[in-house]
Amino acid sequence: MSTWRARIDAIDQILLVLLNERSRSANEIGHIKKQHKLPIYVPEREKTVLGNVLKNNSGPLEDEAVRRLFERIIDETRSLERRKYQNLD
Amino acid sequence: MSTWRARIDAIDQILLVLLNERSRSANEIGHIKKQHKLPIYVPEREKTVLGNVLKNNSGPLEDEAVRRLFERIIDETRSLERRKYQNLD
Repeated sequence: MSTWRARIDAIDQILLVLLNERSRSANEIGHIKKQHKLPIYVPEREKTVLGNVLKNNSGPLEDEAVRRLFERIIDETRSLERRKYQNLD
Repeated sequence: MSTWRARIDAIDQILLVLLNERSRSANEIGHIKKQHKLPIYVPEREKTVLGNVLKNNSGPLEDEAVRRLFERIIDETRSLERRKYQNLD
């Protein structure tokens, strides 16, 4: 069991790096949106993002689980993007 | 902007692979727990998992965002582990 747990711990460290890296990219996008006075929330783009992961999901996570996970990821990313740029000009 | 979006899309594909790989490892643990009649839900282990990621978080995601993300990840993993093994003997 400890081998599998060590594997999960290692995966989690990579997940953490990638989630932060994803937020960094989203902040860059937020910055561009701000410069061009574009809205932070772009529902079509969020649908595309979800579609991209769902079409490549081969499990064992079910599509609904993947959808819930990425909805959370998108939501946290958008919140940060919004907080970071709402007061900048 | 399209460069950053392409970067997010690439990150998402890796996240998807890692999240499924994480579930696969959790299923192996679930299998071992079932064999030894151990409970699926181990709150101390979940605290350790959260602690491991929080102590290494260097942002830009805030600790509370990382906590919410990993609570969702742990929750989806546990649900799958539970569904997969609750009826096995």
